[in-house]
Amino acid sequence: MIRLPIIALLLCLQTTLLAQNTTSTDEQMIRNFYDLSLLDGQSYNWLDYLSNEIGGRLSGSKQAQMAVDYTKVELDKLGLDKVWLQPVMVPHWIRGRQEVAWFNDSSGVRKNVNVCALGGSIGANTGEVGVIEVQGIDDLARYGRKQIEGKIVFYNRPMQANLINTFQAYGGCVDQRHVGAIEAQKFGAVGVVVRSMNLRQDDYPHTGAMSYGELAPEDRIPAVAISTNDADALSTAIKSKTDVVFSIDIACETLPDVQSYNVIGEITGTEFPDKYFVVGGHLDSWDTGDGAHDDGAGCMQSMEVLRLLKNANYKPKHSIRVVLFMNEENGLRGGTEYAKVAQDKGENHVFALESDAGGFTPLGFSFDCDDANFEQVLSWKPLFEPYLTQSFTRGGSGADIGPLKKESGIVLSGLRPDSQRYFDYHHSPNDTFDAINKRELELGAAAMTSLVYLFDKYGIK
Amino acid sequence: MIRLPIIALLLCLQTTLLAQNTTSTDEQMIRNFYDLSLLDGQSYNWLDYLSNEIGGRLSGSKQAQMAVDYTKVELDKLGLDKVWLQPVMVPHWIRGRQEVAWFNDSSGVRKNVNVCALGGSIGANTGEVGVIEVQGIDDLARYGRKQIEGKIVFYNRPMQANLINTFQAYGGCVDQRHVGAIEAQKFGAVGVVVRSMNLRQDDYPHTGAMSYGELAPEDRIPAVAISTNDADALSTAIKSKTDVVFSIDIACETLPDVQSYNVIGEITGTEFPDKYFVVGGHLDSWDTGDGAHDDGAGCMQSMEVLRLLKNANYKPKHSIRVVLFMNEENGLRGGTEYAKVAQDKGENHVFALESDAGGFTPLGFSFDCDDANFEQVLSWKPLFEPYLTQSFTRGGSGADIGPLKKESGIVLSGLRPDSQRYFDYHHSPNDTFDAINKRELELGAAAMTSLVYLFDKYGIK
Repeated sequence: MIRLPIIALLLCLQTTLLAQNTTSTDEQMIRNFYDLSLLDGQSYNWLDYLSNEIGGRLSGSKQAQMAVDYTKVELDKLGLDKVWLQPVMVPHWIRGRQEVAWFNDSSGVRKNVNVCALGGSIGANTGEVGVIEVQGIDDLARYGRKQIEGKIVFYNRPMQANLINTFQAYGGCVDQRHVGAIEAQKFGAVGVVVRSMNLRQDDYPHTGAMSYGELAPEDRIPAVAISTNDADALSTAIKSKTDVVFSIDIACETLPDVQSYNVIGEITGTEFPDKYFVVGGHLDSWDTGDGAHDDGAGCMQSMEVLRLLKNANYKPKHSIRVVLFMNEENGLRGGTEYAKVAQDKGENHVFALESDAGGFTPLGFSFDCDDANFEQVLSWKPLFEPYLTQSFTRGGSGADIGPLKKESGIVLSGLRPDSQRYFDYHHSPNDTFDAINKRELELGAAAMTSLVYLFDKYGIK
Repeated sequence: MIRLPIIALLLCLQTTLLAQNTTSTDEQMIRNFYDLSLLDGQSYNWLDYLSNEIGGRLSGSKQAQMAVDYTKVELDKLGLDKVWLQPVMVPHWIRGRQEVAWFNDSSGVRKNVNVCALGGSIGANTGEVGVIEVQGIDDLARYGRKQIEGKIVFYNRPMQANLINTFQAYGGCVDQRHVGAIEAQKFGAVGVVVRSMNLRQDDYPHTGAMSYGELAPEDRIPAVAISTNDADALSTAIKSKTDVVFSIDIACETLPDVQSYNVIGEITGTEFPDKYFVVGGHLDSWDTGDGAHDDGAGCMQSMEVLRLLKNANYKPKHSIRVVLFMNEENGLRGGTEYAKVAQDKGENHVFALESDAGGFTPLGFSFDCDDANFEQVLSWKPLFEPYLTQSFTRGGSGADIGPLKKESGIVLSGLRPDSQRYFDYHHSPNDTFDAINKRELELGAAAMTSLVYLFDKYGIK
């Protein structure tokens, strides 16, 4: 009766000490990642080069290729076990010369407006035609062909400012941009103008992908985004007079597909080299800004994850790959190809983390995984609390890693930064390096590294 | 044996329903505050005027008086029960003409540097004198009078970038600014240059209050802040050559005290009119920027709290006052006077909330209160979670409301926004309206209103 309790006590003590040691090791390791990122980080310098020396990196462009070359060179410098380029054919849409658009304002005077072609739009010059304002796709049927035919449809439903998560507000509007043209064409529209997905009032038009679906080339109509200030001016003009005309003159073209690449670096696992972790973002961006937030930030943070693991002298059990995906913005070819190659090779991917929500203060992560793994994540909350990045939610992850999803056995995760400012810059000429805060970027990289470390150490359930 | 359980069950049910109703009322009320703030807020427009039409509002300046007049007029428009000015004499320090400072760089060529006088500094022209770099007050004794006498002391200890809470990093450096001059003078220094309290590398000098303590006027030495870029350049020069000279030429003056005011508005309580809540910020600011973040944001958010309560048609039980305190930056005369008058009149203040940490995304509140009230606050977490503002910590509140502190019976609280960007702007020429994000400001105002509402409804424990 005496020995058992003593043994039990000793076992208990050992377990407690072990638990304390483990926790303390984890605390120290995570502290180390943050110190390395905040005191001696590379993500900000890399992003400076990518944004200011290369700039906007639309798929198929010279800049996209420069970004591939640059990140390959930088990954080579890190002393990873492997660095390679994964070929992928990408669409090659070009904007052409500066877009021109105007309407006649309430006094009848021509007012030039800030527009940009939506990604994928045909080039066209509509000439001056009538314009009809709608609040969304559903309005089209209400007005009918009689009122729409021969006109430009102006989609003006704004993002809902009282939603706290701005991605939700974006989700509530983006159908106008994505399928606005194909739907308006069914009613005989000759072009569409879409209010920029922007919660601010300013003069920047925000581009983004649109689709013609199966529409025959000769039936396609041009599509542009208009700045929020000019959307309001146009709406005011339409309300105050009946004969408003609008003109769109854009010169975009879709050229043949181009050879491009996903950029990949790997630290090969010590215990489970055949189980793969992916951490990534997308290397392509829209062309009007320099793509610092979308998604230069996520790419540089992902490269930084591998650099921090190495500099902390942590040898992962699993093989950890950074993947800089090509063509998220207008095709998702890179993400699709990466998953296809992985499947063809029978590579067992067990974890993927994407950062593609801007380089803002990280608040936590979202997880697309089973209950057991989410429970495990919740148990790590105390480790993230000192860094104010403990908001763990279930939900989506990232577009590029989406194709890796399978029935079970993989955890998909997305870094979730503060979303309040994201749509001020998203797909806009002001998505530039000066909108990046160094600390916010570095905190994200450290948080991502910490999550990768914990999943690597404790495994996928 | 049957009746009791049934009664218990019914009671239980009633309590549950009541709790649900209460929660649901609270949820609706808070949702309403956020909708009013984000869809139809005034804080951003008010701050636009205060920042761009009035500008920097140093105590005793014409702009400070304009800010008093403007906010009084705006509060008058809100239909509060009372609006008044509370007289307070304030210091009147002026910067004078643009500061000039230089050193001879490693090639011996004169390099002009970006400096600004610290608030309270005397005006002086040191001429070219030697300069000695130190990492803090403690270094002075190490070097001793022999190496310091006749020289300028250059305090160059940077903010610690790996601290997550940037206010903690600020706290670790600000002694150099506050008492650097008085301490250096003891060793015969003729002036001090202090590295700006800024986590970024840039060209802005950051001012702030300094003190001469009891030092006789004739013994006082000039004190300036230097930008982080120029601090690094100066340090490099000092390390690379031995005969670096530095020159400070500044023209500040302390003039006689000036009549100024706290601006106060009140909604008188329906049940406890003699129990007072205060919500406020400080109306004065430094003069080099326009004081948008520090603390125009906090003032406009505080005014917005009363506007939102009124527009939501909520009639508070307690008397709720907005107080725009004068002279936080270089004297705290407004906060001190408000507390003194309250005490003289026997006004029972039970709650005070200050916003003075910038108009950034709110993450939560800190509380200086007893256990019972903090427990109550923790029970409200679920109400704040949808708004991502549920980080409730114990700790400080705000400088202006500090003098209201008493042994018991008052809850002091501070809005705690994301701190990552605050010291990019704090006391600097770039603390301007363009650094304000409308949504972030409005979220703070809504969060503050929600907290005031809950404490008003459920009372102080």
